[in-house]
Amino acid sequence: MPSTIGDKTYSKSIELPETEVFRNLKNAKRFAMDIGGSLTKIAYYSTVPYRKVLYNKDQKTLDSEGQEVNPKYEVSQGDRLHFVKFETKYIETCLDFLQQNLVASADVMKEKKIKVTGGGAYKYADLLQEKLGLTVDKEEEMTCLIEGCNFLLKNIHDEVFIYQRHGNPEYRFPNVDPCIFPYLLVNIGSGVSIMKVEAEDRYERIGGTATGGGTFWGLGKLLTKAKGFDELLALAERGDHRKIDMLVKDIYGGDCTSLGLPGDLIASSFGKAAQAAPESIQEADLARSLLFAISNDIGQIASLYAMMHGLKKVYFGGYFLRNHPLSMHTVSFAINYWSRGQVQGLFLRHEGYLGAIGAFLKGAEECDADKYSWSENYAGSSGLQSPLPGHKLPSLPVAVNVDQLEMDRIDQGVLVYCPLLDEPASYIPDMVDLTEDSEARQYWLECFEESLDKFVSQAIKSQPHSADAPARAQKFKEKYISRLQYLKQHPCAFGNLTVRSLLDTREHCLNEVDFPDPYLQQKQMENEAALLLLSDHLAELDALPGRQKYETAATNLLAGNVFDWGAKEAAALMQIPGFGFQQALAHLQKRPWFIDHVEDWLVRLEEGPHRCAAIFVDNSGMDVILGVLPFARELLNRGTKVILCANSKPALNDVTYSELVLLLEQAALISKDLSCALEEGRLWVMDSGQASPCLDLGRITRSLADAMISNQVDLVVIEGMGRVIHTNLHAKFKCDVLKVAVIKNRWLAKRFGEQEDTFPVVFQFERKTES
Amino acid sequence: MPSTIGDKTYSKSIELPETEVFRNLKNAKRFAMDIGGSLTKIAYYSTVPYRKVLYNKDQKTLDSEGQEVNPKYEVSQGDRLHFVKFETKYIETCLDFLQQNLVASADVMKEKKIKVTGGGAYKYADLLQEKLGLTVDKEEEMTCLIEGCNFLLKNIHDEVFIYQRHGNPEYRFPNVDPCIFPYLLVNIGSGVSIMKVEAEDRYERIGGTATGGGTFWGLGKLLTKAKGFDELLALAERGDHRKIDMLVKDIYGGDCTSLGLPGDLIASSFGKAAQAAPESIQEADLARSLLFAISNDIGQIASLYAMMHGLKKVYFGGYFLRNHPLSMHTVSFAINYWSRGQVQGLFLRHEGYLGAIGAFLKGAEECDADKYSWSENYAGSSGLQSPLPGHKLPSLPVAVNVDQLEMDRIDQGVLVYCPLLDEPASYIPDMVDLTEDSEARQYWLECFEESLDKFVSQAIKSQPHSADAPARAQKFKEKYISRLQYLKQHPCAFGNLTVRSLLDTREHCLNEVDFPDPYLQQKQMENEAALLLLSDHLAELDALPGRQKYETAATNLLAGNVFDWGAKEAAALMQIPGFGFQQALAHLQKRPWFIDHVEDWLVRLEEGPHRCAAIFVDNSGMDVILGVLPFARELLNRGTKVILCANSKPALNDVTYSELVLLLEQAALISKDLSCALEEGRLWVMDSGQASPCLDLGRITRSLADAMISNQVDLVVIEGMGRVIHTNLHAKFKCDVLKVAVIKNRWLAKRFGEQEDTFPVVFQFERKTES
Repeated sequence: MPSTIGDKTYSKSIELPETEVFRNLKNAKRFAMDIGGSLTKIAYYSTVPYRKVLYNKDQKTLDSEGQEVNPKYEVSQGDRLHFVKFETKYIETCLDFLQQNLVASADVMKEKKIKVTGGGAYKYADLLQEKLGLTVDKEEEMTCLIEGCNFLLKNIHDEVFIYQRHGNPEYRFPNVDPCIFPYLLVNIGSGVSIMKVEAEDRYERIGGTATGGGTFWGLGKLLTKAKGFDELLALAERGDHRKIDMLVKDIYGGDCTSLGLPGDLIASSFGKAAQAAPESIQEADLARSLLFAISNDIGQIASLYAMMHGLKKVYFGGYFLRNHPLSMHTVSFAINYWSRGQVQGLFLRHEGYLGAIGAFLKGAEECDADKYSWSENYAGSSGLQSPLPGHKLPSLPVAVNVDQLEMDRIDQGVLVYCPLLDEPASYIPDMVDLTEDSEARQYWLECFEESLDKFVSQAIKSQPHSADAPARAQKFKEKYISRLQYLKQHPCAFGNLTVRSLLDTREHCLNEVDFPDPYLQQKQMENEAALLLLSDHLAELDALPGRQKYETAATNLLAGNVFDWGAKEAAALMQIPGFGFQQALAHLQKRPWFIDHVEDWLVRLEEGPHRCAAIFVDNSGMDVILGVLPFARELLNRGTKVILCANSKPALNDVTYSELVLLLEQAALISKDLSCALEEGRLWVMDSGQASPCLDLGRITRSLADAMISNQVDLVVIEGMGRVIHTNLHAKFKCDVLKVAVIKNRWLAKRFGEQEDTFPVVFQFERKTES
Repeated sequence: MPSTIGDKTYSKSIELPETEVFRNLKNAKRFAMDIGGSLTKIAYYSTVPYRKVLYNKDQKTLDSEGQEVNPKYEVSQGDRLHFVKFETKYIETCLDFLQQNLVASADVMKEKKIKVTGGGAYKYADLLQEKLGLTVDKEEEMTCLIEGCNFLLKNIHDEVFIYQRHGNPEYRFPNVDPCIFPYLLVNIGSGVSIMKVEAEDRYERIGGTATGGGTFWGLGKLLTKAKGFDELLALAERGDHRKIDMLVKDIYGGDCTSLGLPGDLIASSFGKAAQAAPESIQEADLARSLLFAISNDIGQIASLYAMMHGLKKVYFGGYFLRNHPLSMHTVSFAINYWSRGQVQGLFLRHEGYLGAIGAFLKGAEECDADKYSWSENYAGSSGLQSPLPGHKLPSLPVAVNVDQLEMDRIDQGVLVYCPLLDEPASYIPDMVDLTEDSEARQYWLECFEESLDKFVSQAIKSQPHSADAPARAQKFKEKYISRLQYLKQHPCAFGNLTVRSLLDTREHCLNEVDFPDPYLQQKQMENEAALLLLSDHLAELDALPGRQKYETAATNLLAGNVFDWGAKEAAALMQIPGFGFQQALAHLQKRPWFIDHVEDWLVRLEEGPHRCAAIFVDNSGMDVILGVLPFARELLNRGTKVILCANSKPALNDVTYSELVLLLEQAALISKDLSCALEEGRLWVMDSGQASPCLDLGRITRSLADAMISNQVDLVVIEGMGRVIHTNLHAKFKCDVLKVAVIKNRWLAKRFGEQEDTFPVVFQFERKTES
């Protein structure tokens, strides 16, 4: 266990990120590469030091002057995968940069091996040995590509998308079936490889074509003055292929309606080029014809292989498409046209990294890559759009555009789908798609930007002993604002834009500059205040007759949920002096609520107790202590076991697993019912695997999933605006489910059609879905 | 029935062919066209006047001075299909030429319709109306292509070939299964259409690609200075694609043996072009890369569609391949590679004419195209090789390369496979493939050239009253010599080169200049001489005891076959004064013969009579009268019915159907047995459908085939060098077969291993194949 240190020492050992590319290189532990004919992809694994709050009160932290420091932190290690992509022609420059910056790791690296795939594995073996002192282990490309693809499909949210030019949205990120197989993988590099993947260990290269990215760039260079691949794509974007290609209507002299063929269909690529006067030929038109010819060809061949092998999903990897709208549109069109809609062309946000990821995973013993889930770090990754918001390689004579992907290891192991979801394959943990709903997008992007200063000051306040907290907070602000602005232009850059993704991005940016828990003191203070009220609160409840008691417990659950620093209007109320539980009750909408299934809930209770309830809790303070715990106690008293499911990591003022464990100990001192239940194992806290104010039931810890099954959970309770209103209001379950939330956002309330000044209330009870 | 006319009148009404293109235009009856983006194909149907010998002695022919003329001819009409192909850019020039030369037909054409397919059907409708006064009937392209393909597959011998670059031979012409379906038709025009054809009336366009001939020429024009498609192909032929394409070994740095991938495989077409120094790039290299890219692509897509639909045969039509070796090689390689040998790429000698043929057949009522078989006229058609030996359009300012195909209608209706063949699908009516056997090719080409003067003088001699006979004979000589010389360079130009095809070409060239029967008088003279000997001959035979009689009948059959003007050494003997039947017997090899199944034959005879024998007869004179008729009489006397099968049209001194009918009447006056058999319908002559000294049992008249079935023929006798040694020695039958021939050619005799001065004898008896 790493030693705990005070803030001052800490600020010396953890430095701010200096550069935006090849980040954390000095802590790099292992490298892998995919060297293609055009692009090189480097993967490296590093440990990232980060501040972790210590909840155990008995452990003391002293500063350099021997004073006890509060809050208490320890420095922990996070595991991170970095992927960087740049043009192969800069490979020597990049290797030099790596060599110079492997400060902490130079010795660690010695005598280690580097897994390399792609054609360059053979060509650059000696250079790698010379520059990095690493022995090259050549890895077979196909296996790397497939393992990389499986890794992305399993770990990266919204990795897969469908592209529809001029659609709203243009990018759709469909759910990926928990069982990702079978699929066709079409890797477009200089040439094209086509692989059928039926299972982790069952795959085959079934075809390919030599008409690929190298053909586009090679012919493009001969036909135009474009200086690079992206310039050629840009040319194509503004060209008019109809001046170069022979269309159906060119052959049939305009009159082709009677033929049942679309007149604008290309009959012959470049079919008009030979007749055209040389001076009338525009480079942009040629580039567009070329792009269409090659994309069409690849799309058609891919769809034929898919149909031949009865596969419906075709994923594209490689460097050719580079998420270029026109290319993706053409490939999609060709697949749809030639398969008559039977086959779907699916693109990958990180198409270029398949080989590098696969090479890395080969013998990735140190980081046990396959024993953990990984999640995309929105703060350290580039977005999707072309041209990419790449970063220049610093301190180098040449400006090299690079693109990067960072993934953090989930310490809780492999995350899995909640076993109680009715149809995991169609589960979507988001209520509103902001890429499609421009009004909502505009509101939320502004809303997040407006609330930013509040978060900056909260972050600074949370680390009173840290001298560089204001500077770091400023960095957070810049980073997050740049992300918001980028998302305004490219809403689909990181997958579906949702309230959840905006919240998660904010958390990633905060963590990035080492503000792991800005609400720590706030949460502690509110927990202490709420605990003082618990005893009276329980007594009041116990004084009520049966039915009324249950009704009140439900209402209190909602009143507690008013206390939420994440919600704009709620945060304003909480700052009014003397605002307490009674005041919160007064702010709730009068019954009947917006969604009011209280009667159904009471009827269900009368039918007898549930076996076991899993309650996904929300905020610290009044919410969890006066809302959730009394509600849980009623269930326990009826003979229902209760699992309290809390976040793994801090997010806003949400109560975390570690905090809730301590809180429950304190509550047990106050309530005999709770202490008995704890002792008897009828009540316990579990780590949900989440690090967000929202709830993605597609990624919960395996231990929680196992507990749900072994305890035969027959009631799920989900609480809070983030977990219900933004994400799970429509989720279907195999058991009873209670979704409760207070809509503490005026704009959202109005959207739900509620015009009053009070907060609309959702109390939605659903019986299990009969399947 | 056309009136009979004397030679002088005749020479006025039948003119020598003036031009080599748009031949017989003045007798054109109907047009059809296929106007593509690049090439235009015109089909027209005309009647060809030709001299036909009258065998009926009672009909008199007088010359202009009232003198009776001998031999007697009538002018008859042949039906011919002409197909001409030229570049679409010359369409106006060509239409003008047609307009000016439709002398005899201009009125016939008025108010008629012209069937037009291809994109230009729409574009040029007005021009056609204006120039030719024909209303355009647009015909759907796909149906035309398919019907054209079916027509070629059913009617043109050796239409289909497999191409193997550097193979011996490079072109292989496989047997086409009598049932031509199912197949995949890939039509490569400017773009590519792919059709599945399951039956005459069951077909579907299942795909296509825009990467076609237009792409090759369009990109080729942009990348090189080539002025035309063929120039671009010629560039490609001498280029080195390895300087432009990225090969597998380029990616893997030379070391790719361990990968199990051929290092020379193209990984990325044009993949090296972007890195190459512009000044180092050669146009020829670019052209070759381009050709490979497009041919590979088409081959791959075709093979994928074929595999998807379970089809093994892929035919290529259109104008792209134009029988260019490199293109065909690449397409074949791609099909074989991507289908792992499951699919075969098959090319068509007349790939460019599919649409035009199909358009013509649409409503081809006048010529009842589908009620007849058609055969390629070797004298009027261009050969296969590229560059094509095209002819320039005469009397036009521009020199237009044209290519042509002519087909003659078989007046006997539809020709069919002999129903007694054991396996029609594997039947090959040729013993030696001269494309493969260069020694034999050299011998036969020289042999045919050497014997040419003999044929020229025979032709002149056959028309003593014709003033232009020497000029026409000279034309024949020139035409045939040019064909022989062309075949020396391009042995596969008209399909497999065989002795049969050389013989047929000679007949076509003779007919072309109106020498329908150079041996007419010779045959008459020899028939008369032989008939005088018949009575004694039969008496000698009748004096022999049973077994010896059969043996002698067999020997006489062979002695008769010595009399053959088509065989070099036999012709020399026949010119010796006093050479008769006894002399012929002395020239036969002594027994045991080269193949001597006499004993088997006699054993079979002892087992009892056959039901019915079909005897394919050979030469006039001694052969048929003293050889065949006595042999047939023995069979008749044993109770076997006999069908004498004779040629439809003259070829050398072979007895024709019409001649044999008359001869049999005369023989019946001599032999009571024969006259009885004739009267009782136990002996009759049938028209075999042949017009060659050889015998193609894949194309006999339907009436003969029907008679074979209805009379339950259980013995086939094939006689003669052309019908046995050159063609059917290895043919297998469902019934007993007797193959008899005298090898009257010294070179051939030596090849069979016989060194003596006498003629080797084949007397091969085979019992029916048990199936």
